[in-house]
Amino acid sequence: MLNIIILAAGLGKRMQSDLPKVLHPIAGRPMLAHVLDSARALSPDRIVVVTGHGAERVQAAFAGQDLCFALQQPQLGTGHAVMQALPQLLEGGADDVSLVLYGDVPLVRADTLRALLQARGEGLALLTETLADPAGYGRIVRDGEGRIRRIVEHKDARPDELAIREVNTGILAAPTAALRDWLGRIDNRNAQGEYYLTDVVGLAVADGVPVSHAQPSAGWETLGVNSRVQQAQLERIWQGEQARVLLEQGVTLADPARFDLRGSLACGRDVFIDVGCVFEGEVHLADGVRIGPHCVIRDARIGAGTTLDAYTHVEGARVAEAARIGPYARLRPGADIGPDAHVGNFVELKKTRLGRGSKANHLAYLGDAEIGERVNVGAGTITCNYDGVNKFQTVIEDDAFIGSDTQLIAPVRVGKGATLGAGTTLTRDAPAGELTLSRARQQSVPGWKRPTRKS
Amino acid sequence: MLNIIILAAGLGKRMQSDLPKVLHPIAGRPMLAHVLDSARALSPDRIVVVTGHGAERVQAAFAGQDLCFALQQPQLGTGHAVMQALPQLLEGGADDVSLVLYGDVPLVRADTLRALLQARGEGLALLTETLADPAGYGRIVRDGEGRIRRIVEHKDARPDELAIREVNTGILAAPTAALRDWLGRIDNRNAQGEYYLTDVVGLAVADGVPVSHAQPSAGWETLGVNSRVQQAQLERIWQGEQARVLLEQGVTLADPARFDLRGSLACGRDVFIDVGCVFEGEVHLADGVRIGPHCVIRDARIGAGTTLDAYTHVEGARVAEAARIGPYARLRPGADIGPDAHVGNFVELKKTRLGRGSKANHLAYLGDAEIGERVNVGAGTITCNYDGVNKFQTVIEDDAFIGSDTQLIAPVRVGKGATLGAGTTLTRDAPAGELTLSRARQQSVPGWKRPTRKS
Amino acid sequence: MLNIIILAAGLGKRMQSDLPKVLHPIAGRPMLAHVLDSARALSPDRIVVVTGHGAERVQAAFAGQDLCFALQQPQLGTGHAVMQALPQLLEGGADDVSLVLYGDVPLVRADTLRALLQARGEGLALLTETLADPAGYGRIVRDGEGRIRRIVEHKDARPDELAIREVNTGILAAPTAALRDWLGRIDNRNAQGEYYLTDVVGLAVADGVPVSHAQPSAGWETLGVNSRVQQAQLERIWQGEQARVLLEQGVTLADPARFDLRGSLACGRDVFIDVGCVFEGEVHLADGVRIGPHCVIRDARIGAGTTLDAYTHVEGARVAEAARIGPYARLRPGADIGPDAHVGNFVELKKTRLGRGSKANHLAYLGDAEIGERVNVGAGTITCNYDGVNKFQTVIEDDAFIGSDTQLIAPVRVGKGATLGAGTTLTRDAPAGELTLSRARQQSVPGWKRPTRKS
Repeated sequence: MLNIIILAAGLGKRMQSDLPKVLHPIAGRPMLAHVLDSARALSPDRIVVVTGHGAERVQAAFAGQDLCFALQQPQLGTGHAVMQALPQLLEGGADDVSLVLYGDVPLVRADTLRALLQARGEGLALLTETLADPAGYGRIVRDGEGRIRRIVEHKDARPDELAIREVNTGILAAPTAALRDWLGRIDNRNAQGEYYLTDVVGLAVADGVPVSHAQPSAGWETLGVNSRVQQAQLERIWQGEQARVLLEQGVTLADPARFDLRGSLACGRDVFIDVGCVFEGEVHLADGVRIGPHCVIRDARIGAGTTLDAYTHVEGARVAEAARIGPYARLRPGADIGPDAHVGNFVELKKTRLGRGSKANHLAYLGDAEIGERVNVGAGTITCNYDGVNKFQTVIEDDAFIGSDTQLIAPVRVGKGATLGAGTTLTRDAPAGELTLSRARQQSVPGWKRPTRKS
Repeated sequence: MLNIIILAAGLGKRMQSDLPKVLHPIAGRPMLAHVLDSARALSPDRIVVVTGHGAERVQAAFAGQDLCFALQQPQLGTGHAVMQALPQLLEGGADDVSLVLYGDVPLVRADTLRALLQARGEGLALLTETLADPAGYGRIVRDGEGRIRRIVEHKDARPDELAIREVNTGILAAPTAALRDWLGRIDNRNAQGEYYLTDVVGLAVADGVPVSHAQPSAGWETLGVNSRVQQAQLERIWQGEQARVLLEQGVTLADPARFDLRGSLACGRDVFIDVGCVFEGEVHLADGVRIGPHCVIRDARIGAGTTLDAYTHVEGARVAEAARIGPYARLRPGADIGPDAHVGNFVELKKTRLGRGSKANHLAYLGDAEIGERVNVGAGTITCNYDGVNKFQTVIEDDAFIGSDTQLIAPVRVGKGATLGAGTTLTRDAPAGELTLSRARQQSVPGWKRPTRKS
Repeated sequence: MLNIIILAAGLGKRMQSDLPKVLHPIAGRPMLAHVLDSARALSPDRIVVVTGHGAERVQAAFAGQDLCFALQQPQLGTGHAVMQALPQLLEGGADDVSLVLYGDVPLVRADTLRALLQARGEGLALLTETLADPAGYGRIVRDGEGRIRRIVEHKDARPDELAIREVNTGILAAPTAALRDWLGRIDNRNAQGEYYLTDVVGLAVADGVPVSHAQPSAGWETLGVNSRVQQAQLERIWQGEQARVLLEQGVTLADPARFDLRGSLACGRDVFIDVGCVFEGEVHLADGVRIGPHCVIRDARIGAGTTLDAYTHVEGARVAEAARIGPYARLRPGADIGPDAHVGNFVELKKTRLGRGSKANHLAYLGDAEIGERVNVGAGTITCNYDGVNKFQTVIEDDAFIGSDTQLIAPVRVGKGATLGAGTTLTRDAPAGELTLSRARQQSVPGWKRPTRKS
């Protein structure tokens, strides 16, 4: 059985935040969620999250998931934290193993953890790293035959130990029964008065349990977050990593350093993404989609060959193939744009279907509307869908031509092939094929004088 | 008495600009203003700015401030520049000191200058730096006991001197009386025919005056600007430094490398700032404010828990707490948004108060208006505040409902709880509680034919 | 006679694209176009492009240009590729030379190629590079006198050869006749079964032909593109290089790392370009132009002292001097903005001239219009230029005042000094100097009740 224990009790004082540290986001998701991603990829039998500061908020943020929680209160060190998880660990036999991860070390990869579990054999395995500058880290001390003997903290290290560049990351995997035993034997007789998880290494060696190691494939996997500066660094590392994966899948990014993905992005072939775009939630871009500069796209499906021009803002919307959207177009939840349709500048759509080949190119608000095919929605068109308390539906049938600056007071229907004159306030249905308008007579006032300046 | 002399006479030919070099901005302010910030932090008794090229423009840019100006015309070297300042230096006693700074070395910090003054004792103090690659710089030559003996220019240095990595930055502090004496003794018998300020070092040594040194805490403090490339480099260094300070205060920056601050930014707790935002002037963001991507915010106060969505442009405006602004919202000078209010896409406000809980969500221009609480401003609403020469006020009282595409011809008042029908042109006050509208009868034209294509 | 042979037959499998590799863009233009720029700068007598994968698309993309094409089908190595070009090489005498370039090595500079041709004398010249880490590259093996003897591939190199840091870039210049002879003698008896162009080096040495070399001035000149990652890297290198050139010309870039130029940008004196701007096509910015953050400018001429504020989107338009455009202004093809004119937020212009000192500051669509001088175009103004099949012209003469939310149903003319009332639907010409309007009577409905919530 595999238990995964995730230490998530820390205060994160340097974050200077009301939010518990492990809830601070990387790429739009709590750091702890990233750790859980890697944890779950190992198909563990149980995951125990050890909470402390802000325990309720952490637990609430992951409520309803496949997790157990243990409370560490007060916080007396990493060893003490793992002790709190012990009652919840599943144990069935000699090959049971427990893996200890950290909620503020969010980018560790499942492959690295798999390698650690594999390296373990039947003993204890430490995730170590070899650093150019190991200052401040606990060094991995080995004997003449290369076997790990102990971990010495930087401040306790002798000069020859300070020269060691292999350091402890804190991540380890141990036989569950042995871990239970060792944690019962560690003490807090040290300067901090804390129980250190790393003390189990000495006990393992003393017990003759073999201590092996594995190393992460990328150095950033074991970076922790204790400050906003570090959070920003990991954010950029992770964004760069996500960009790299997309590039390798064949996506063109105009500038991988100016690309932000906070969720998932699935791309077809020959997708182009210009500078400054932000993707959130779940986004699908089909073959040949082109995204212009500075777009913000959240929870959207964009069809093949469609272009979103600069400053397009999409949320909870679908766009079919070969459509042209933007610049400055806003698609809100429930916008559903048909093939070959156009949505132009300063146009907002909400809960509105715009049919194949229809156009709304300029300055319009279309909400709660069903718009057919080949409809021309004139500049300044507004669906008056809201009477202050209720929302109503507008229906515009195929081939209608909506003149500029028209208000459609819903519920209302524009018949197939109908034409609305510019400036019309449509209060009743417009019959198919006919011109409908509401227009006052144009008149000029010959003797009229322009206003003069008032002081 | 502390005099600070700032050399600001240079042409900056490589800038290829009509603007005097020291007026070129870093973070939106002239380089010279940055130097003055650090200078003033030392509470000097006098600041003398030595101008030359573009002297009038430099003087005009800092008119009315606590500065003296000296004109260096022609420019015959750094020593000659300081000579021009001598008549204006305050002198009262033996511990009088003069500090020489450079208008094109904008990022030197007050702490560094304080350290220099402290290192000085009663002698001369040089700000030096130790560089990995000292090529091109004047080297600090010391004797066997580590005492500074002289500065040797790169081109005059012997091989053993070329190996020296400690270099002169040009910034120095000296007893005012001695400086006056030394400058009277330096000459211009060199290749350039110029009077070099660094020549005072040799005179100090010859006079038996102790020469001490200090070093800046960051290497970039002494970088100078002679070209747009260097200006851009310092701009990014300074922006990175400003970002670092905000991160350490607990602000989240989605990307510290895509953050620009040209002025001051005061942030409450748990503020989030997305990529690509530009802040100018004086901006306050209260607790929990979220700024979306690519916003431009100038001289603004934003209340707690308020969100500014993507592409919001704010200038000279206030937003209260828990409001939702944007995307694509434009708040112009005098916009004053109440708590829980919403300003949506393609909406512009100028000199307009929008009361608590009111909404203007779509395509509107609201200028010179007083809008009460819980008002719904429909899409396409326009306050007609300008008759070509005068501006007039619109008043909309609490709980009014402004139908879409309504024009309010100011001066005009909409009474409490009044409703305006869509498409209304409001020329007279609308009574409270009633429906007011101006609407032509809707009619259809059965036999009407669509236009045909004209060749 | 100078022949230039450009190898452009590769598949670019790692690009994972339907587009032939050499058509993938750097800075908005196919990689091959960049190579052709450098090639043409040498005034060659003939350029032969060797195509293979996607040959038709490559040829079509450069149709009508001064190029010959040779087809390499199948692709049997670089030597084989050059063989396909041989029938088209111009040959007139002993000093004829052929230069071999690569369509996927886009950034090589003409100056570097000139240096290579000059270094050649009458023999063979290789473009080589000295790398800190030469792993993977073919090493340049020289004899005791420093003469190039051969190129040894990484995998075939002895330890002492692996230590060589001078590597082959693949670019070479050779006497045309000799090249022809050598290519007839190389074989494909190697692991890949390919004909290698580098094999000509050994033949040249054997024939006693002197082999010289030149090196590029920048390391990035010889970087090749085999993946989207590499494409992105070269894109950023090239953008950085373009930014550097502009900075040296005296342009201020708020952040050179957030500047994209896909075409040509000519700037006057003291131009300022803020962060996140994208320039495409041919753009001219006159003296003192200021471009705000996140603008997109394509094929445009902007006059002296004009400001484009944030999020301005310009394509195929002209703006005269001292105009103020934006934020959120959209100038489409044929927009022609006069001196001192203003175009404000959420305003779109297409095929429209806006005269000197005229203003369209808010929420407007102006298409196919001639607008005179000192005209005030009110908020929400729309030219109804389209009847569904035809486009018509709107003329607004000098000094007219167009009230807010007015629709001008083209063809229509507003006379000099005319005023249109707010909310007017203008169907016939408005006489000069008079007030014209179409307005329904305002009425209130005293007993009216607000709608109630429907479940």
